[in-house]
Amino acid sequence: MPIPSPTLYPPFNVIRLSHVEFGVTNLAASRAFYVDTLGLQVTDENDEAIYLRALEERGHHCLILRKASSSLIKALSFKVFDDAQLDLAETWFRDRGHAVDWVERPYQGRTLATVDCFGTPIEFYFKMDRLAPIHQKYALYHGVKPLRIDHFNCFSPDVDKAVAFYGELGFRVTEYTEDEESGRLWAAWTHRKGGVHDMAFTNGTGPRLHHTAFWVPTPLNIIDLLDLMATTGYVANIERGPGRHGISNAFFLYILDPDGHRIEIYCSDYQTVDPDLEPIRWDLKDPQRQTLWGAPAPRSWFENGSVFEGVEPYASGLKASPIIAP
Amino acid sequence: MPIPSPTLYPPFNVIRLSHVEFGVTNLAASRAFYVDTLGLQVTDENDEAIYLRALEERGHHCLILRKASSSLIKALSFKVFDDAQLDLAETWFRDRGHAVDWVERPYQGRTLATVDCFGTPIEFYFKMDRLAPIHQKYALYHGVKPLRIDHFNCFSPDVDKAVAFYGELGFRVTEYTEDEESGRLWAAWTHRKGGVHDMAFTNGTGPRLHHTAFWVPTPLNIIDLLDLMATTGYVANIERGPGRHGISNAFFLYILDPDGHRIEIYCSDYQTVDPDLEPIRWDLKDPQRQTLWGAPAPRSWFENGSVFEGVEPYASGLKASPIIAP
Amino acid sequence: MPIPSPTLYPPFNVIRLSHVEFGVTNLAASRAFYVDTLGLQVTDENDEAIYLRALEERGHHCLILRKASSSLIKALSFKVFDDAQLDLAETWFRDRGHAVDWVERPYQGRTLATVDCFGTPIEFYFKMDRLAPIHQKYALYHGVKPLRIDHFNCFSPDVDKAVAFYGELGFRVTEYTEDEESGRLWAAWTHRKGGVHDMAFTNGTGPRLHHTAFWVPTPLNIIDLLDLMATTGYVANIERGPGRHGISNAFFLYILDPDGHRIEIYCSDYQTVDPDLEPIRWDLKDPQRQTLWGAPAPRSWFENGSVFEGVEPYASGLKASPIIAP
Amino acid sequence: MPIPSPTLYPPFNVIRLSHVEFGVTNLAASRAFYVDTLGLQVTDENDEAIYLRALEERGHHCLILRKASSSLIKALSFKVFDDAQLDLAETWFRDRGHAVDWVERPYQGRTLATVDCFGTPIEFYFKMDRLAPIHQKYALYHGVKPLRIDHFNCFSPDVDKAVAFYGELGFRVTEYTEDEESGRLWAAWTHRKGGVHDMAFTNGTGPRLHHTAFWVPTPLNIIDLLDLMATTGYVANIERGPGRHGISNAFFLYILDPDGHRIEIYCSDYQTVDPDLEPIRWDLKDPQRQTLWGAPAPRSWFENGSVFEGVEPYASGLKASPIIAP
Repeated sequence: MPIPSPTLYPPFNVIRLSHVEFGVTNLAASRAFYVDTLGLQVTDENDEAIYLRALEERGHHCLILRKASSSLIKALSFKVFDDAQLDLAETWFRDRGHAVDWVERPYQGRTLATVDCFGTPIEFYFKMDRLAPIHQKYALYHGVKPLRIDHFNCFSPDVDKAVAFYGELGFRVTEYTEDEESGRLWAAWTHRKGGVHDMAFTNGTGPRLHHTAFWVPTPLNIIDLLDLMATTGYVANIERGPGRHGISNAFFLYILDPDGHRIEIYCSDYQTVDPDLEPIRWDLKDPQRQTLWGAPAPRSWFENGSVFEGVEPYASGLKASPIIAP
Repeated sequence: MPIPSPTLYPPFNVIRLSHVEFGVTNLAASRAFYVDTLGLQVTDENDEAIYLRALEERGHHCLILRKASSSLIKALSFKVFDDAQLDLAETWFRDRGHAVDWVERPYQGRTLATVDCFGTPIEFYFKMDRLAPIHQKYALYHGVKPLRIDHFNCFSPDVDKAVAFYGELGFRVTEYTEDEESGRLWAAWTHRKGGVHDMAFTNGTGPRLHHTAFWVPTPLNIIDLLDLMATTGYVANIERGPGRHGISNAFFLYILDPDGHRIEIYCSDYQTVDPDLEPIRWDLKDPQRQTLWGAPAPRSWFENGSVFEGVEPYASGLKASPIIAP
Repeated sequence: MPIPSPTLYPPFNVIRLSHVEFGVTNLAASRAFYVDTLGLQVTDENDEAIYLRALEERGHHCLILRKASSSLIKALSFKVFDDAQLDLAETWFRDRGHAVDWVERPYQGRTLATVDCFGTPIEFYFKMDRLAPIHQKYALYHGVKPLRIDHFNCFSPDVDKAVAFYGELGFRVTEYTEDEESGRLWAAWTHRKGGVHDMAFTNGTGPRLHHTAFWVPTPLNIIDLLDLMATTGYVANIERGPGRHGISNAFFLYILDPDGHRIEIYCSDYQTVDPDLEPIRWDLKDPQRQTLWGAPAPRSWFENGSVFEGVEPYASGLKASPIIAP
Repeated sequence: MPIPSPTLYPPFNVIRLSHVEFGVTNLAASRAFYVDTLGLQVTDENDEAIYLRALEERGHHCLILRKASSSLIKALSFKVFDDAQLDLAETWFRDRGHAVDWVERPYQGRTLATVDCFGTPIEFYFKMDRLAPIHQKYALYHGVKPLRIDHFNCFSPDVDKAVAFYGELGFRVTEYTEDEESGRLWAAWTHRKGGVHDMAFTNGTGPRLHHTAFWVPTPLNIIDLLDLMATTGYVANIERGPGRHGISNAFFLYILDPDGHRIEIYCSDYQTVDPDLEPIRWDLKDPQRQTLWGAPAPRSWFENGSVFEGVEPYASGLKASPIIAP
């Protein structure tokens, strides 16, 4: 498969994934999960929405929980280098026939709303209210002590297409799984900010959001969270892990929020800033790519995802089978 | 069920579990597993046997690997308080009709060989060669950095009987699983040395050795071992974990040696020296007793065990079913 | 120096150190320190006193904070094996001319108050209210997540005398520092419960309490506490550490409570149940006995201690000098 | 002080610090330190030099040890985005009157050698031999398990000048210490790759290299190294730590190699990719900027550094005094 070359001059400069807005059916239940259990910090809240940041972040929000009549995802958001990039982005999307819109978002400056190659709602902004640092206010740390949002992972009906599209925007592939027979991509991890990924794509009915990941420093944070969830009524929300992915080398845990949105807690990936970093190829049949230690993932992990508001997912044409726990 | 009361004056004073001798079919393969991978220290070796100790131990051996034509366990061994206890033990076992024998064991003083209430071969000694401390020779630490042998867990065809027998010898129950309908014990954890167990008993065809456990200080030791085993040809030897037991609160990993002998690596249990420590009761139907975080154990974990040399196991009459992974 | 031999039959059977009562001048300030910062759990409190336990303890209290007009220690308390041991203890102390008294202590059964060979107030009891386990109530864990009280360390004007006295009661020496010239003990660590110590003695003006220690599972607990104290107004209460003692191999931190009572947070010691465990001898001139990594302790650590109520400390005759930070 | 604004278009694009070449007087002693103790991996070695990489690096070397008649630093090296950047760099330095030279470096492509504003020898390259990933070859991990080179810290006679010079090249200030009276910079941390620093500058006689840092994932790696060094003859090579810097929030340890070159082992910094990341200002008089937990640094840490080959350091005009341990 053709992996896009890195470019110093993408059409507009995306710095990193930034935040996501979840539609949730019960704000109080979501607050108990994200604030009391995970330990995200509330930066604003009202009857309609809760704004959250992780402990080393200075931007106003990395996660917005908004009251909704059903579980859904509003949009995936990205920060660009400066204000000028937003106009470059508008032109680029418009030229390709993607609908574009300038939208108002609280605590943000100009925000461009558009869609990716599958209709996934995505937004770009440069300015967001900056808050005082809290990473050394250790009295605030609790739960899993999340330091920052790390990446999105999306079910994609055509991973080759996703990689080509985001590749044009400067997202570099760090690791990928290839279906040996068809030569098509099964999954790919792409980054902007110098880690293993800002955006990953997994073959499946999509576009849907597979998970949103938060970064923690050590596996002990994850073990603490497991102990806490297991003894505070969240044992059924533990879906998969703890374990280590072969891909990305991440020590991981997958949990489900009260609306079924999947969250990954994650540490141990590596630095990827070298423009000549060689993508690592994994065979779809290698069980250690999923879990280095051998345990397969449950079926739910391959099938369930969050829909984007107003976007109808469609099935992938690629039917190769991953290894699933019986 | 009647849990034996603690006694200050057992018929003879057992200090702790001490060591075990495994019959192994390939000494080199076992050495690669226990020495190169787990990090146990060789204290003596020849063509027939390898003697090992863990890093904070000063006794000559906690594990003996002996060349054998098939996978088996020779005996479980216990250290007593002083030489006089051995004579008390001899009398006690002889009075109850158990065969007793004084046997020669390298690096040990007088050693009494006998059997427990199921015919399990057990041995008692007081003196063993004492070696210089190595717990501060940090250059020796590698693998999982095992600090000491912690406990034996045996499949028992009658756990009530096991608890009564070992209870007479002063082994105190710390936690147990009861079958609600029959009121019979499904499993029990009993100790002498002040931790959750020296000897545990699990309902099943027995007597067989379910596992031998080594103590490590933190979950990170276990994660390091998983990474090492997963990338040095031992991924299929990882049977269960990592996870946290509800019972004992231990963070655990179960692995299989080249002969199928099961080893637990383990941390996070608690101190149990209070004579009025209340045993904790678990319901057989509570899945969190097995794994606090919810994941069930694989079938192999409930079924496979190591036989004792020359001892025919027999089925348990108790047929209640634990929760098993599909 | 003559290290007492272990005995299976001490005059009465002490299980372990149990608890201590601190006189404190400001209950609210002490509560902020011990409850909000260290994470001990309140089991009772009123205008005069706060009762605390650590997270794996089931006895009602390991630390009592009692309002007092000056900083002092009321008594060091020990748990015995059963009620009968209390009468044996009474006889033993009376026979040796130590004042004995049966005192009322809330939440405890019969309690014997007496003094040791230096006049240190010590108390013995068997029964204390037992509380439900909380070690798996992970939502309660915060601060340094203390699991249990571990030991007392006392300034002693005559360490040889201390070791002889407590040795008669079955306290076994695990490690000691000897002054090479005089052949006298500089410091000794003695245990009942199977760790490196329940009671340690350090040469100095005494009797005074040098510190009370709490056990935590990993160095990361200690690092978390340092970060918390450093950013919540307690930076000046950090006296020494983190570091690793040569003696006991403990990873340590010494902090001072608002009244100057010294607390050690501690992990990584080893199991000492073998009756033939060889005490480890350290030379007073070996700087690594204090801190394996080389950093000397501050002068305050060698000089400051808490006085026992109504007990006048006196100077030690032994004048050897330890290594002190400039 | 004027902190340079971030720019999307620096005159040439530097990706990150890359490697350093140390002149060492005894290759075998240096090998014992860096390979056997720290755990760096040898990628090539001969009688004159040893090439090393850390465990997640795929470039051929991050540290070169070269036999020399005295302890010195050959050059600090940086990787640029592509080959074209080298020509841009040549022009930029030549235009400013800095000597430039194209030099041959084993395992590297075209390499530009020049000097910075103080005469510090610096080199730029794009291509370096890429080696197969070893980050999942866990059998190779030992010592402190270093994952990657993280930053250089230089003594600078004029920190304002250093920040201005490197700022033109796109190095962004993340944190800085200002002398309140003079308004001049005492120290500054600047980055290219998205962490707290690639290059830091500390006021002092310079240019000299203060230290080279390696990144590890957790404080336990550092504690393991302390235990190892303390028991393998390197206790005197431990200069400062462990501790947490206020600045950068890093958990740190400073050690000295056999030639006195200072190495920092380091974890816990944070992501800095946002172009609008606000630099954090520290007051020179705030002792927590050096060590969050309060312990001052030893005098040697403020005074000793490694000279660059053929470069005469000169004194700084700024005479403010940091807090030094007595």
